[in-house]
Amino acid sequence: PRDLRLAVVAGDGIGTEVVEQGLLALDTALHGSGVTVSTTDFDLGARRYHATGETLTDTDLEAIRGHDAILLGAIGDPSVPSGVLERGLLLRLRFALDHYVNLRPSRLYPGVASPLGNPGEIDFVVVREGTEGPYVGNGGAIRVGTPHEVANEVSVNTAFGVERVVRDAFARAAARPRKKLTLVHKHNVLVHAGHLWRRTVEAVNAEFPEVTVDYLHVDAATIFLVTNPSRFDVIVTDNLFGDILTDLAAAITGGIGLAASANINPDRTAPSMFEPVHGSAPDIAGQGKADPTATVLSVALLLEHLGLPAAASRVEKAVADDIAGRSSAERVRSTAEVGKDLAARIAG
Amino acid sequence: PRDLRLAVVAGDGIGTEVVEQGLLALDTALHGSGVTVSTTDFDLGARRYHATGETLTDTDLEAIRGHDAILLGAIGDPSVPSGVLERGLLLRLRFALDHYVNLRPSRLYPGVASPLGNPGEIDFVVVREGTEGPYVGNGGAIRVGTPHEVANEVSVNTAFGVERVVRDAFARAAARPRKKLTLVHKHNVLVHAGHLWRRTVEAVNAEFPEVTVDYLHVDAATIFLVTNPSRFDVIVTDNLFGDILTDLAAAITGGIGLAASANINPDRTAPSMFEPVHGSAPDIAGQGKADPTATVLSVALLLEHLGLPAAASRVEKAVADDIAGRSSAERVRSTAEVGKDLAARIAG
Ligand SMILES: CC(C)[C@H](C(=O)O)[C@@H](O)C(=O)O
Ligand SMILES: CC(C)[C@H](C(=O)O)[C@@H](O)C(=O)O
Repeated sequence: PRDLRLAVVAGDGIGTEVVEQGLLALDTALHGSGVTVSTTDFDLGARRYHATGETLTDTDLEAIRGHDAILLGAIGDPSVPSGVLERGLLLRLRFALDHYVNLRPSRLYPGVASPLGNPGEIDFVVVREGTEGPYVGNGGAIRVGTPHEVANEVSVNTAFGVERVVRDAFARAAARPRKKLTLVHKHNVLVHAGHLWRRTVEAVNAEFPEVTVDYLHVDAATIFLVTNPSRFDVIVTDNLFGDILTDLAAAITGGIGLAASANINPDRTAPSMFEPVHGSAPDIAGQGKADPTATVLSVALLLEHLGLPAAASRVEKAVADDIAGRSSAERVRSTAEVGKDLAARIAG
Repeated sequence: PRDLRLAVVAGDGIGTEVVEQGLLALDTALHGSGVTVSTTDFDLGARRYHATGETLTDTDLEAIRGHDAILLGAIGDPSVPSGVLERGLLLRLRFALDHYVNLRPSRLYPGVASPLGNPGEIDFVVVREGTEGPYVGNGGAIRVGTPHEVANEVSVNTAFGVERVVRDAFARAAARPRKKLTLVHKHNVLVHAGHLWRRTVEAVNAEFPEVTVDYLHVDAATIFLVTNPSRFDVIVTDNLFGDILTDLAAAITGGIGLAASANINPDRTAPSMFEPVHGSAPDIAGQGKADPTATVLSVALLLEHLGLPAAASRVEKAVADDIAGRSSAERVRSTAEVGKDLAARIAG
């Protein structure tokens, strides 16, 4: 009997709705396992920002640190200036809690319609670096609003930061049947960062000789994602390229309504965070229209990370089975209905 | 009767083969128009680099400046370290000749197979900024090769640079039937550069009130490119996002074998440069297998830029007609055969 202390950041828009179903899936998956869940809700996001001007205080952060994991719904609202919540809350969590592995599995489940005419089998995972690159907030501007404005953005890449995520990606590739790792970058233009990534992949490959490595420029990678996605097994890439590729990957596997993600601190010096890839979707918020599947799949990643692979598999199988039955569904189900159906399948 | 002085940079790999057919198309299109073409070949690329260590000398550059336009085949070879020719030659040309509008039309020609199951009508153009962003070469690294290496890449964006390309994109949108402009950036993370782009689009919109503007984050833009590409009319974006989006755009419209591009200096202070989007494809070089269509379409962009719209239309129509007949073609044609067939159609 263990107690799982879960920090819950439902956030904005459809966040609350999908997180509710994620928690139901989690409780159901753990039922009878001896593991209990105790949740702490954190009031973070647009509402809190408008009420207090705060995004994420040091006190919030310290309180979150006292948990085993974080479940996050969605952050962002048009009423808040662009970047404020993204950088002040979501990215601040990723950076402060050292989520250097941003894991985004892409699988085309049987029964899901892909926009590709002939998608083939799609089952790969993107290991996106989460604490460096152009996301560091290391930019600035001078003479703002004048004809002489200069706005710079700096991508910071360190041997320390690249090596740890590359090693994690190799370990994941080594554990998969195909044992293939694709580095995606743009080293013919971003030569300094690109060569650091390339040299690091070459060096770490020596520790994982069983893994086959190849390289694609980011522009070419987008081509293969639509012409031959089956070629991918594990992709390792930087923060920004990973952001772009994983949305495209979600699109070819049925949309961001199904795309799960894990922001992992592999050293376990702070809680990891699990969140659907989709945003807060304010246009459909509060209407029970959001698909909670991506959140439920994120819960599977959470269970996996916490060393509960059997429970994780049950959740994933429930989703796969539910999806397989979807094409014949007679009507669109509400968020709560999908959550209930998934929970019923998880209960088995 | 006018003489068109054309600088020809055939370059590496399949560059020579496709440029030959591009020149044939150009000559044919101008036949009887009173405009003659005189070409100067520039020996630039991998061969020259290996022979002399040079990529693009000041003398080369000055000689190229004395021309009305440049036709470029492809640059790059695995025997040359990554980045040397890209930055020393291709990007140097784009930057030195102030090619601030990198124009990349995306059209799904009738008869072309798209990897999308239900592509719909695709006919948009990407206006990619060509002289700023992360392409400026303003990065560096310290402690290279040690565990303490730090490699930075800087994206530089100026009001001057953003405004001129945004104005060009608005003018193009205003001249098209749908009059729609989509700004693509990532202003929720790259806040300084992103807000400069956003403010600039808002400001220039006042000069083009008839143009409808919307905005997409780059990750979301990749989703729409595969789920609803018909939504796009003109896209304006930065150098790196444009690089990524245009390869994806090429993929959904039948591949980079068909994708043309123009590196334009709208102020005409230096010659503009026309090149297929595909690379040097060393794996098929010298075998007559390369599709010269993208180069021939780039010639159409060249004719358009030089104020010869009738000739440009003839070239584009020849390509469209040739493509429409392709599905019934009994065998794969060689580079020269495609070139000859296109020339025959241009001659009419
Ligand atoms: C909301 C935004 C800051 C975020 C990102 O860019 O990482 C999102 O797009 C994602 O992929 O999780
Ligand atoms: C070869 C490379 C430097 C170039 C670029 O990144 O601009 C190419 O990908 C392109 O799109 O023209």
